[in-house]
Amino acid sequence: MKKAEFTLDSVRDSLIRQEDTIVFCLIERAKYPLNSPAYNQSYVSIPGFSGSSLVEYIVKQTETLQATAGRYENPEEHAFFPDNLPRSLVPSYNYSQVLHTAANSININKMIWDMYCNQLLPLFVAEGEDGNYASTAASDIDCLQALSRRIHYGKFVAEVKFRDAPRDYEPAIRAKDKDALMKLLTFEKVEETVRRRVEKKAMVFGQEVNLDNVNSKGKYKVDPSVVSRLYVEWVMPLTKLVQVEYLLRRLD
Amino acid sequence: MKKAEFTLDSVRDSLIRQEDTIVFCLIERAKYPLNSPAYNQSYVSIPGFSGSSLVEYIVKQTETLQATAGRYENPEEHAFFPDNLPRSLVPSYNYSQVLHTAANSININKMIWDMYCNQLLPLFVAEGEDGNYASTAASDIDCLQALSRRIHYGKFVAEVKFRDAPRDYEPAIRAKDKDALMKLLTFEKVEETVRRRVEKKAMVFGQEVNLDNVNSKGKYKVDPSVVSRLYVEWVMPLTKLVQVEYLLRRLD
Repeated sequence: MKKAEFTLDSVRDSLIRQEDTIVFCLIERAKYPLNSPAYNQSYVSIPGFSGSSLVEYIVKQTETLQATAGRYENPEEHAFFPDNLPRSLVPSYNYSQVLHTAANSININKMIWDMYCNQLLPLFVAEGEDGNYASTAASDIDCLQALSRRIHYGKFVAEVKFRDAPRDYEPAIRAKDKDALMKLLTFEKVEETVRRRVEKKAMVFGQEVNLDNVNSKGKYKVDPSVVSRLYVEWVMPLTKLVQVEYLLRRLD
Repeated sequence: MKKAEFTLDSVRDSLIRQEDTIVFCLIERAKYPLNSPAYNQSYVSIPGFSGSSLVEYIVKQTETLQATAGRYENPEEHAFFPDNLPRSLVPSYNYSQVLHTAANSININKMIWDMYCNQLLPLFVAEGEDGNYASTAASDIDCLQALSRRIHYGKFVAEVKFRDAPRDYEPAIRAKDKDALMKLLTFEKVEETVRRRVEKKAMVFGQEVNLDNVNSKGKYKVDPSVVSRLYVEWVMPLTKLVQVEYLLRRLD
């Protein structure tokens, strides 16, 4: 992101574009059934990864690989297993630093992992197994990374809101008043618009497209109400949690 | 895939579903500009990977990881760098074997790689760089794997067609007559339907979805005519190439 582009509009555009990514990822994950052995810590025994499920192993190893390629130099990206990641082997790119340095200490991926694996997955994938554990795990990484990026984008949302009206936020920040901050960050009408839009995206992107212009009414690859629920129960509340955590450190 | 499901209809359903995946992958890749350093063999120097571009390095390493998770046990999957892949560490899944064993010797991923990196990419991504080389490469893997799976699915298409009418194919197979086989496998009307459908999918999935029911006429995340061209110039011809190669070995 270039500095010139960091405005309330650019932040909003990014959030809207990320909705498409999240819906695509869920639709792709739904191609496979649950494949529960991939989440079972005793299903595989991989040297050096005892106690890891196949999905944990693949996510850890993928993050290691992507770290060498510089993924986590981008302040929009957050690892699920950030400890002991190797350094980037790629010449460093000059990402513009728009966030307060305290942003680096905020990573709620443990909560996102738990939400995704234990609560969200069973809501939108079929039961059963088809043996495609590697592809399932690759698809899980896409979902996890898309959700993580969207939720941690709360840092940018908070920063742009703070810059827009610092005096509105400073008293609550100094008082460490989380409830007051949460109130300042909550716009029910906006949240309802987002909810309706992601539900519609699930309908548009998850329909069966054919040339007869026959609408696949009621038959979607991922239930639109699940996408709506994902945003209402998890994505928007967790984004606001990130915003509050960021703002609490904004004057440090 | 269960044996019971291997019919002309199940094969067609899979091909249609894979169109959605391909369009989603292209739309996601188009979020990033070309990021040409990722394809430049002198941009990075990674120990043990001299002469590899960042994308080659990431694809090789991802395939190694996915091989340990059993990805290539599935006869629908083909590696881009199949030499010296490690064996799977996952209990083997009993994929039903519907293909002739000669299928294992067919892998045209070199052609697919060349087509994707050198011809397709510049048609649908913007010029320039944004530093997201790792994410770009991850997105390239998704595209490459989706295209590879779709094109090599020609093995299943050929098998189901052969089973349906072995006598139509046997003379051309015994005569090793590629042209005659290609003619038997070509249905211009079906190909035109596929072309129009993928173009429409690019419009539906690549539109800006909003709540006003305003159509984003003419503004798509990936130009639908590029998706149409991808199928006409590459996906369908390469699928038929796979079918011909498979049928030539079908009576061995």
